Amino acid sequence: MWPNRTFLDLVGVELPIIQAPMAGAGGAAMAVATAKAGGLGSLPCAMLGADKVKAEVGVIRQQTARPLNLNFFCHEPRAADPSRENAWKERLGGYYDEHGLDKLATAPAPNRAPFDAAMCDLVEDIVPEVISFHFGLPAPDLLDRVKAVGCRIISSATSVAEARWLEERGCHAIIAQGYEAGGHRGMFLTDDISTQSGTFALVPQVVDAVSVPVIAAGGIADGRGVAAAFALGAAAVQVGTAYLLTPESLVSDLHRTALLAAGEGQTALTNVFSGRPARGLMNRVMQEAGPISAEAPAFPTAGGALAPLKAAAEAKGSADFSSLWSGQAAALNKPMGAEDLTRKLARDAAERLAAINP
Amino acid sequence: MWPNRTFLDLVGVELPIIQAPMAGAGGAAMAVATAKAGGLGSLPCAMLGADKVKAEVGVIRQQTARPLNLNFFCHEPRAADPSRENAWKERLGGYYDEHGLDKLATAPAPNRAPFDAAMCDLVEDIVPEVISFHFGLPAPDLLDRVKAVGCRIISSATSVAEARWLEERGCHAIIAQGYEAGGHRGMFLTDDISTQSGTFALVPQVVDAVSVPVIAAGGIADGRGVAAAFALGAAAVQVGTAYLLTPESLVSDLHRTALLAAGEGQTALTNVFSGRPARGLMNRVMQEAGPISAEAPAFPTAGGALAPLKAAAEAKGSADFSSLWSGQAAALNKPMGAEDLTRKLARDAAERLAAINP
Repeated sequence: MWPNRTFLDLVGVELPIIQAPMAGAGGAAMAVATAKAGGLGSLPCAMLGADKVKAEVGVIRQQTARPLNLNFFCHEPRAADPSRENAWKERLGGYYDEHGLDKLATAPAPNRAPFDAAMCDLVEDIVPEVISFHFGLPAPDLLDRVKAVGCRIISSATSVAEARWLEERGCHAIIAQGYEAGGHRGMFLTDDISTQSGTFALVPQVVDAVSVPVIAAGGIADGRGVAAAFALGAAAVQVGTAYLLTPESLVSDLHRTALLAAGEGQTALTNVFSGRPARGLMNRVMQEAGPISAEAPAFPTAGGALAPLKAAAEAKGSADFSSLWSGQAAALNKPMGAEDLTRKLARDAAERLAAINP
Repeated sequence: MWPNRTFLDLVGVELPIIQAPMAGAGGAAMAVATAKAGGLGSLPCAMLGADKVKAEVGVIRQQTARPLNLNFFCHEPRAADPSRENAWKERLGGYYDEHGLDKLATAPAPNRAPFDAAMCDLVEDIVPEVISFHFGLPAPDLLDRVKAVGCRIISSATSVAEARWLEERGCHAIIAQGYEAGGHRGMFLTDDISTQSGTFALVPQVVDAVSVPVIAAGGIADGRGVAAAFALGAAAVQVGTAYLLTPESLVSDLHRTALLAAGEGQTALTNVFSGRPARGLMNRVMQEAGPISAEAPAFPTAGGALAPLKAAAEAKGSADFSSLWSGQAAALNKPMGAEDLTRKLARDAAERLAAINP
């Protein structure tokens, strides 16, 4: 019944819905629930060590044998730049004073490690049906290894140029990540956000440029969006923000509350939390220090200086210094379980496709 | 056969395609060709005096009795700010030197006047079936007058808040102008471009927020886009960039050539040409002085200082200082006549809607 089955046939799932891997927000439970509904469940691994990945996959495999997507970042780590990091901390100094924090204070910051040989060893043992990458692809030898064991490879393109680059390197499917998308933009051939395309413009241009299945992402929150993605030529969708409101989501209560209250036009791209552009609900630190700051240190270290502020503010019930990742269509979401959400997205999309038949 | 007829019934056209009014690029011929195909032809009046509007409408009315849209800007003119304008000219001074131009040089700059009582008198004589406004709505007394003679009123919203504002003031239909759109953003309740939504996210949220027909705009270039707009809940589309490549378009050869060569990811929002954010193909002055500059004078005067540079560069075959308005999907367009384009958009949309029927 789906107008384009290329993604379904490639991956062996029933529904053309990918639960977006969201580092810090998704775990085994979300992937299992999505898989049970017939979608492609994803485990975000960028902030997990190999032991934790192994344990989470073990939990998932106990509950479902359906296809699983493991997601990794593949940024090139930059050398530490203490002077820039200190300058950034100085820039945020007023907030430290305000919260009575010593500028020497530290707190655990999100660690985002790129896919490496050790993780590749583990993946060769696990053999997930799908591996998706963000920020391009890993080194050719690592990519060859995961392809050799039979994993389907997916990565995100934020432009036609990136889509072509990914196809040339053997990606089996490509996510066209539009400007509307929440969380980190997968951009890797440019860092200029001013020329990034919206989902509506990006998807058909990527579809025309590559021959592999294209997955639409960015601003897709309900059956209308899924139907529209098919109209534009996509073979599947990747949905993120809607899953943040499921009980399976690991986001903080502050983040969940902010998402529930969000209206349209309240997100922006910001680099203040990590050093790379990512979309979240506008809050105080984004407004005052960004949303895009030329002073923010390189990814992923910018968050280090914010970590003590985040901890102090959250302890007082404030999300002023927290990354509240969200796409532009958060207001369309209603909280429900991840399994129900997956089924509902597919059912509503099918109804919408039928309703607009001329 | 169209899944949503509310716009067609409101305006009395056959096809749910509005040819976008593009000041400087559209004239009588484009509106006539669109109307003959069954779409809604538009005459952009923001850069025309009343006499010219009257003459152009006369030409149109000789050739078609079908519904016509007259488009006006309704920005609030700011008082002249010579010191800021001089500072902006200083900022551009190096370019003057490069082109051997005296900084006291002047050249005709685009004049964009808001809808006023004199134009309202004329509209009461013409009684166009539709009037569309950009940058909000005119003063209540003027709005009442054009409504009193029976014109259908349309305006652009770049956010849900703007859509609600327009509906409360009696708009009969609302254009949801996504981030992808070329030319000037219609934003009027905010000037913060960082929170502007893409078409994919904006359209369904506006559809949910208002009860009048919603027209999708931004990144719609072919039948796939029209079909996707209906999937998202739109009742019609407004298409701009595709019409820039028609023989009826009044754009310069330089602009046309740049559009034909454009790939994805080559546009940005810029305020350097007018003082308000508008999307165009990235060129030298956008790259070097913008694309968004805090120094650009208020709309519409920023273009004054660029006018001599534009004239000098264009005489040498360079578009370095020309506004090359374009949406994000320019690369999807192929040159054809405006009548053929209108019919093709509708025919391809119908085929696409049928093809994705589950």
